[in-house]
Amino acid sequence: MTDTVRIPASKMKDVFCSILSKHGFEKDRADTCAEIFTANSIDGVYTHGVNRFFLFVKLVKKGFVFPNHDPITVHTTNALEQWDGNLAPGVLNAVKATDRAMELAKNNGIGCVALSNTNHWMRGGYYGWQAAKSNFVFIGWTNTIANMPAWGATDAKLGNNPLVIAVPFNGESIVMDMAMSQFSYGSMELAKLKGEQLSVDGGFDKNGNATKDPSAILESRRVMPAGYWKGAGLSLLLDILSVILSDGQSVKEITENKPEHGLSKVFIAINLQQLKNYNGIQACINNIIDDYKQSAVESDRKVVYPGERVLIDRERNLREGIPVVKKVWDEIETLLYLE
Amino acid sequence: MTDTVRIPASKMKDVFCSILSKHGFEKDRADTCAEIFTANSIDGVYTHGVNRFFLFVKLVKKGFVFPNHDPITVHTTNALEQWDGNLAPGVLNAVKATDRAMELAKNNGIGCVALSNTNHWMRGGYYGWQAAKSNFVFIGWTNTIANMPAWGATDAKLGNNPLVIAVPFNGESIVMDMAMSQFSYGSMELAKLKGEQLSVDGGFDKNGNATKDPSAILESRRVMPAGYWKGAGLSLLLDILSVILSDGQSVKEITENKPEHGLSKVFIAINLQQLKNYNGIQACINNIIDDYKQSAVESDRKVVYPGERVLIDRERNLREGIPVVKKVWDEIETLLYLE
Repeated sequence: MTDTVRIPASKMKDVFCSILSKHGFEKDRADTCAEIFTANSIDGVYTHGVNRFFLFVKLVKKGFVFPNHDPITVHTTNALEQWDGNLAPGVLNAVKATDRAMELAKNNGIGCVALSNTNHWMRGGYYGWQAAKSNFVFIGWTNTIANMPAWGATDAKLGNNPLVIAVPFNGESIVMDMAMSQFSYGSMELAKLKGEQLSVDGGFDKNGNATKDPSAILESRRVMPAGYWKGAGLSLLLDILSVILSDGQSVKEITENKPEHGLSKVFIAINLQQLKNYNGIQACINNIIDDYKQSAVESDRKVVYPGERVLIDRERNLREGIPVVKKVWDEIETLLYLE
Repeated sequence: MTDTVRIPASKMKDVFCSILSKHGFEKDRADTCAEIFTANSIDGVYTHGVNRFFLFVKLVKKGFVFPNHDPITVHTTNALEQWDGNLAPGVLNAVKATDRAMELAKNNGIGCVALSNTNHWMRGGYYGWQAAKSNFVFIGWTNTIANMPAWGATDAKLGNNPLVIAVPFNGESIVMDMAMSQFSYGSMELAKLKGEQLSVDGGFDKNGNATKDPSAILESRRVMPAGYWKGAGLSLLLDILSVILSDGQSVKEITENKPEHGLSKVFIAINLQQLKNYNGIQACINNIIDDYKQSAVESDRKVVYPGERVLIDRERNLREGIPVVKKVWDEIETLLYLE
């Protein structure tokens, strides 16, 4: 088994913040980025937290992510704005776009920011939690590099284009954060490392047979769209919407931008406080979740709502520290000293 | 093989219109309803066109659908309105909500109508085509009665809650119209009738084994969510959003309203003409579709975009007439004479 250490959240954030400051981030920007990478790790989304931090800094150093750039508002209507992300850090642009979508929704009921020319937002669910905790509904998505074949195809022309939908729930949130592939490359790498099979078919082997074997899928690169033709179709539509609303680059174009940068994203917020039924909303959601939880289940199964498992990870990681493969943490710490 | 007749579209529409007029619909309302049921049939979505027309009239006669009711605006903000559908025909409410969402988007860039207390919209894709043909993006969804178990559960607590996303494309539209179940009950009934297996696992048999056998799934009622936990989670979120935004009834509540009536829906439109890049949008979509179509495919496969097959059905059905099982058409024609 790989050597794992547990890093206290406050230490992780401090280390991230020091590294970012050292690599050109202004103080408050270093702080916000460090906060988001740490929060994603606390919530158990290590692939888009601590495990991606080294790569993030590398992209900054290589000049694909500009630490102190800000997005520019290119076009406005009452409730919808088009922004150019100016290749600023994806997490900072996403926080700002989410804030602005909420501001637009405060004035109009619903608000939308379409953001071109931005960078990886890491965990899209973060912005869902951000909006939901302020009593807004959040609907957002991004395109990515091509990493998934169309239904019936053998080469990747589609992104896995994650879609996030979030609603406030009991002071926390219900957050759906779904890539359009059945499994992420990260989770397939992990299953391979552990010598495990996937729970359902996650793609095709090089002979075109559907398989649960992560090694065979990682070799063929033919990942399964979630729901077969459905996830593939939805991925195509989400790319088109990202591109036309933001006036940004498509999956095809981003794939040519090696490494991945210059993404297109959409952020929609809806202001619940302005609805006539605002005071009854939490009771409504409670009723739906109560009924859902009363599902009859097979003996070894449990019905969970999207985002529910996050709370378990969060509680444990805050108490015991965030688990990180020692080699990964050591590599991050070298950034404290490297120029 | 079942006896099938081909009914010319204009005749179908006339018959529907006469029947609806006879059963209490004011002239223009009969006309719009007949138009939509016919259009859905022309486009090959028979399950939500001609094949459902008899049931629709039955629900009118039983007093669950009020032919001449209109929706009422309950609450407004700049860009978002909450409507009570007043149990009017679902297709009429949906056309009006889509029109109003476009109107709100004209003024604000994005617009939303959340509609409670409405009836079945038949084919959600219809409203996607409606908006896209006027150069709007459409995002809409509905809840339904409970007809799909949560992931890991054995009893149906979720609806299959269709989601529609549409964009204009070359004078026509790209329209994703996806239920959250992998297959509709209609398509499983059809496969059973033809003695065919489903192309992928469509649910579980009564022993809990995943299966392609439509008869086993129709017996167990355990349909597969598209993408397993992903479609199930998305279904839950779409129900919550429908309910809290419209102040309407949930899947659980609608399931208790036998037969299905009083649904909750959301209609979002985005005005492309107001975007700074409006003139380049069609070229952008063309580039994405061109690249998608260049996918490498297995020998017997073809890559299609959502809504592409509709154009083939439409062309043929307009030329040759709409195929209807003779018994179904005969039953509809009895409504011309029945009180």
